[in-house]
Amino acid sequence: MATRPSGRAPDALRPVSIEPGFARHAEGSVLIRMGGTEVLCAASVESRVPPFLRGQGKGWVTAEYGMLPRATHTRGGREAAKGRQSGRTQEIQRLIGRSLRAVVNLKALGEMSITVDCDVLNADGGTRCASITGAWVALRLALETLVRNRVLASVPLTAQLAAVSCGLTGAGAVLDLDYDEDSAAAADANFVLTEAGGIVEIQGTAEQAPFSEEQFQDLMRLARIGTGQLFAAQREAVDTALAASGGAR
Amino acid sequence: MATRPSGRAPDALRPVSIEPGFARHAEGSVLIRMGGTEVLCAASVESRVPPFLRGQGKGWVTAEYGMLPRATHTRGGREAAKGRQSGRTQEIQRLIGRSLRAVVNLKALGEMSITVDCDVLNADGGTRCASITGAWVALRLALETLVRNRVLASVPLTAQLAAVSCGLTGAGAVLDLDYDEDSAAAADANFVLTEAGGIVEIQGTAEQAPFSEEQFQDLMRLARIGTGQLFAAQREAVDTALAASGGAR
Amino acid sequence: MATRPSGRAPDALRPVSIEPGFARHAEGSVLIRMGGTEVLCAASVESRVPPFLRGQGKGWVTAEYGMLPRATHTRGGREAAKGRQSGRTQEIQRLIGRSLRAVVNLKALGEMSITVDCDVLNADGGTRCASITGAWVALRLALETLVRNRVLASVPLTAQLAAVSCGLTGAGAVLDLDYDEDSAAAADANFVLTEAGGIVEIQGTAEQAPFSEEQFQDLMRLARIGTGQLFAAQREAVDTALAASGGAR
Amino acid sequence: MATRPSGRAPDALRPVSIEPGFARHAEGSVLIRMGGTEVLCAASVESRVPPFLRGQGKGWVTAEYGMLPRATHTRGGREAAKGRQSGRTQEIQRLIGRSLRAVVNLKALGEMSITVDCDVLNADGGTRCASITGAWVALRLALETLVRNRVLASVPLTAQLAAVSCGLTGAGAVLDLDYDEDSAAAADANFVLTEAGGIVEIQGTAEQAPFSEEQFQDLMRLARIGTGQLFAAQREAVDTALAASGGAR
Amino acid sequence: MATRPSGRAPDALRPVSIEPGFARHAEGSVLIRMGGTEVLCAASVESRVPPFLRGQGKGWVTAEYGMLPRATHTRGGREAAKGRQSGRTQEIQRLIGRSLRAVVNLKALGEMSITVDCDVLNADGGTRCASITGAWVALRLALETLVRNRVLASVPLTAQLAAVSCGLTGAGAVLDLDYDEDSAAAADANFVLTEAGGIVEIQGTAEQAPFSEEQFQDLMRLARIGTGQLFAAQREAVDTALAASGGAR
Amino acid sequence: MATRPSGRAPDALRPVSIEPGFARHAEGSVLIRMGGTEVLCAASVESRVPPFLRGQGKGWVTAEYGMLPRATHTRGGREAAKGRQSGRTQEIQRLIGRSLRAVVNLKALGEMSITVDCDVLNADGGTRCASITGAWVALRLALETLVRNRVLASVPLTAQLAAVSCGLTGAGAVLDLDYDEDSAAAADANFVLTEAGGIVEIQGTAEQAPFSEEQFQDLMRLARIGTGQLFAAQREAVDTALAASGGAR
Repeated sequence: MATRPSGRAPDALRPVSIEPGFARHAEGSVLIRMGGTEVLCAASVESRVPPFLRGQGKGWVTAEYGMLPRATHTRGGREAAKGRQSGRTQEIQRLIGRSLRAVVNLKALGEMSITVDCDVLNADGGTRCASITGAWVALRLALETLVRNRVLASVPLTAQLAAVSCGLTGAGAVLDLDYDEDSAAAADANFVLTEAGGIVEIQGTAEQAPFSEEQFQDLMRLARIGTGQLFAAQREAVDTALAASGGAR
Repeated sequence: MATRPSGRAPDALRPVSIEPGFARHAEGSVLIRMGGTEVLCAASVESRVPPFLRGQGKGWVTAEYGMLPRATHTRGGREAAKGRQSGRTQEIQRLIGRSLRAVVNLKALGEMSITVDCDVLNADGGTRCASITGAWVALRLALETLVRNRVLASVPLTAQLAAVSCGLTGAGAVLDLDYDEDSAAAADANFVLTEAGGIVEIQGTAEQAPFSEEQFQDLMRLARIGTGQLFAAQREAVDTALAASGGAR
Repeated sequence: MATRPSGRAPDALRPVSIEPGFARHAEGSVLIRMGGTEVLCAASVESRVPPFLRGQGKGWVTAEYGMLPRATHTRGGREAAKGRQSGRTQEIQRLIGRSLRAVVNLKALGEMSITVDCDVLNADGGTRCASITGAWVALRLALETLVRNRVLASVPLTAQLAAVSCGLTGAGAVLDLDYDEDSAAAADANFVLTEAGGIVEIQGTAEQAPFSEEQFQDLMRLARIGTGQLFAAQREAVDTALAASGGAR
Repeated sequence: MATRPSGRAPDALRPVSIEPGFARHAEGSVLIRMGGTEVLCAASVESRVPPFLRGQGKGWVTAEYGMLPRATHTRGGREAAKGRQSGRTQEIQRLIGRSLRAVVNLKALGEMSITVDCDVLNADGGTRCASITGAWVALRLALETLVRNRVLASVPLTAQLAAVSCGLTGAGAVLDLDYDEDSAAAADANFVLTEAGGIVEIQGTAEQAPFSEEQFQDLMRLARIGTGQLFAAQREAVDTALAASGGAR
Repeated sequence: MATRPSGRAPDALRPVSIEPGFARHAEGSVLIRMGGTEVLCAASVESRVPPFLRGQGKGWVTAEYGMLPRATHTRGGREAAKGRQSGRTQEIQRLIGRSLRAVVNLKALGEMSITVDCDVLNADGGTRCASITGAWVALRLALETLVRNRVLASVPLTAQLAAVSCGLTGAGAVLDLDYDEDSAAAADANFVLTEAGGIVEIQGTAEQAPFSEEQFQDLMRLARIGTGQLFAAQREAVDTALAASGGAR
Repeated sequence: MATRPSGRAPDALRPVSIEPGFARHAEGSVLIRMGGTEVLCAASVESRVPPFLRGQGKGWVTAEYGMLPRATHTRGGREAAKGRQSGRTQEIQRLIGRSLRAVVNLKALGEMSITVDCDVLNADGGTRCASITGAWVALRLALETLVRNRVLASVPLTAQLAAVSCGLTGAGAVLDLDYDEDSAAAADANFVLTEAGGIVEIQGTAEQAPFSEEQFQDLMRLARIGTGQLFAAQREAVDTALAASGGAR
């Protein structure tokens, strides 16, 4: 079996860093890097909810996703100039928002909205998973800001959440595909998992040929390895940010 | 454990029917019914491919999805009048197109495009899975038309494809959710499978709380039961249509 | 003078059927067929009126029109994907809505809106007229539902309404053009008439050369013959539907 | 029976003027005034046809319609700012284009397009009819320019065309409704007629109650009176313009 | 140094006329002509302000700009049909609105909005400056209407405002560029000035090569000459209009 | 006279840094920081020109501008989601593109396009000027890449370009307004200047009251001081980038 283009072991993540505070005006933000992929995640709090939730005493968490035109190898058209978000963009931002909501106690949040913007500054595969992993930290930091400002009594999160992609490539089942691997994979799958081992979202897609249940379980096993390391990186980023804001917790 | 609202057994599909020929002008079409869900699937052949494929000697298969405004309990706005397709619509039509392409030999199709329109006339849950199951038959019938008209030498399909949703409800893991079950499920998953047992697409989503790997495997087991029956219904519809068109195969 | 492509007599309608209840969730609905033309008409009741009518104690009736992409010989682009309704679509839905409002007592309806969606499943000419004829039945059934549910004391309709197209063709003045006739007609006209003989809307258009007043009167005479039969078909559909709903009237 | 708000006789047009040359850059243009209604009609020639006509040796004539935001009693939103043309605008511009094409020999025009822009500067009822009457003159002048420039051998018009509205009001059947009459009419109808007596387009609409065939014939009789005077005004405007351009015909 | 294409002296304006009352329904309007450039400016008063100003006791003044499709040498696409206003259009209407607001006491206006529509009927260069000069008169006349109707106690304008373009051409620094000069100028600048000598807006642009501070001052000197004459034309138009409305001031 | 909110001297810039290479895939890019304002500028080369330039042997340079939703104090709506770019966005990107083109020899560039994307990551006033200053460096680096790859023989730039804003505030005429100063300024002006002293663009706007010619000259004097420092920072960034790419020049 071939080695990976990057030389990584099949179960090796790319170097990960999560830098808090990049968006200075946001209630919570990080710049997350997974290898050559860089996503700016910024959580914004508003004290009102969308019309369909008004008067129910519940909050809302949602996400928007974008990619700078030259985040990619060749320049892509600017969605604002084209006048519509692509189906891919909408699919990704729906996934991020749904995943975050699965670990927020919306009742405890109360009638507030949090929008997490995930903007890809540089893309090298895995942008949707990096967005989810970064967005959870940005959301956590925004909620900590609300606690520090006594708007909330405690952080209404029910779980820690991270995401990673895995795929079937010429090097077998591998963890955390980069762009070169992703564009040649026979199949890939995105896993959104909680630190406690729960599954929040699974999206597996055969790109070239149907795959088997055994292959799928290989991918899930790799995802558990990868998210384990991502949970640690998230905790470190949260600790750094809380220390900086004087918040001993 | 509670019984299902419909009284069905956990592993029971709703009544399925697949009526070929509903869209009279289309090269292939069916009206698929799964309980109260009705989707008109029409495959249209064009003798050109999208710009990004020109000159490569390969074909293209894609899908579009829509819902009549009053397919649902309360009237939804007409997307044509609103001037944009919702994120949900785009996500579904991308899924249908991707699933179909996974079982078509695009090289063998040659420089032609087939668009499968899936329009929901009545909705009672499971419209995306019904669309895929019906779309495969419409596509098959359109390809048979091309063979009958000597445009193609043989049908360039590599597998038979069907889809079904499963979910975790008050009645446990159940097959083929209807609207009432879907809107109250703790988690649901859509499985797009081939008759040979391959996985083409998996989408699992925690609606209320993360779920476990065991629960996920229960859902996959139900999906295999359900698609087994759908494959039979598809074959019967194809046979009926071919007999009607005088095509003994 | 030539015979008609279909062999019909100049004053013969195509076979007509009006099947109530096709859209299961709608307050009133029919699937109307005139030869190869099939339109699903669904009336939806909402308990509010558009902003320009608020607080006036009057109701509103409007219509929306659409055509499934493969209702026609060659696939047409989906309006929702193109992001705008064509001028033709808007013109037709304005005509349907205006015609219906001409026979509704909006004061008696009270502050409610009824939207009638007319979606063409299969097209073979005359879709706008079939839409009006079907829409009137769907509207009538929705109003009967409101009476049955004691929202209204009586059905606020002032007349029975149907529509038919006529045209000048190689076979002379003929009734109820199908697609082949319509695309070759020298002139055509749509007549929206009431059972009591009143004119609600006339639209006559010279496609190739101006026509005379006498020719126009020939067309109107045919329209009276055709709508006579349509009124009967409408009454039968209403009776069937009311019998099914247990509503003896 | 009441007198008209303007004091006009039932069969009296408002004062009409047709001033050629208002749009200085256009190949043909007029400013037409019918009472308080003023429409600038400008015909633009392009030496190519829309895609669906290419290579057929035929030309095309079309129209676009607009209303300045403050042409009306209260300011209307600017369609360019709203990002879409209303259904009313599209319906009117389709009518103008269709009417003009009915009197042009498109084969004789050859592979050229003429677009007639009709922009309402001041509105007091009857803007669509004034647009058609003015557009015919603008089109005629543009075609004369093409003849003068030896692009065409002769003017490819098959008839002279004008339009007028009539309606049923408190003063009975009346000719050329102004805004006050139009907004209170029980029914109105627009007639597009040729100088030779042919009918190009009829649009009759019951605004409040169905009308009878006799009433409709009264309206048509008035329309013949009104267009008779409009044909004279058109001829005078054409003569003035041709004299000014040195074109003795 | 070359002479100007028009033969004008470097510091000569084109013939200017400002005709009040062209838009009959508007509270204030003018048709301004500067040589071959003609702009219809119409001010509309509404008794509400945009959401961001509500409840602050202040008014709002804004502008919208448009160009009829055949105002130019070759026909431009209609923005309403294209579904968006160009960047140029938006830039110009923002400039007009900002300039007007700089000379209105919005507190004294109270919670009312005035929108000034500037629609170019014929274009020969300098349309944005002609729009501003005309818009100020339309605004003044609308405010006089409000005073006459006792809605306002006095006209809440703080200065008289006019605009003119200047440029560096083959004939040196020249005043009031027409289209031929504008399209060949090395640089041009638009000056929005008050009668008291204040600067409201300056926009200078190098079209071909950077220019010097001295050249810029030459342009500004010309602008003062030009606006001097425009202020006189504005006053005359206001006096004419007020005399006609019986308002002795 | 008051001191500035930031304590800066009236003629002091904020700390400036220009970091090359931030957008890894772009032919040239920088992250420019002016105090709290951060803009990512990325230049993309394409080997074709827009339709209106085809076949003329000339190149094209243009710019697009965007702001991340949470670059600002409160979250702004995402333009891609709203479906249109604001007038402000379009005005700014037109300014950037026009300014860059004024210093490029488009003939020497040949039939290639360069698009410079300027995306604001954090905003604290002066984003359009920072965009121009950064965009010039990104463009220069992209052109150096083309020279290094032997696509061009030399860098087709005719001048070095930078921009800065100045304004009249409570602290008098000051250089390089931050957000607090900008939102309270009586007037502000943006100057786009060349290193050789030429003026490329001037935009001066009275926000509250007209300003005088003397005040305007004070602002221009400050702009010359500020751009002097920006030219030095640009040169340093270019040298750093060229050294890193092994390009000794």
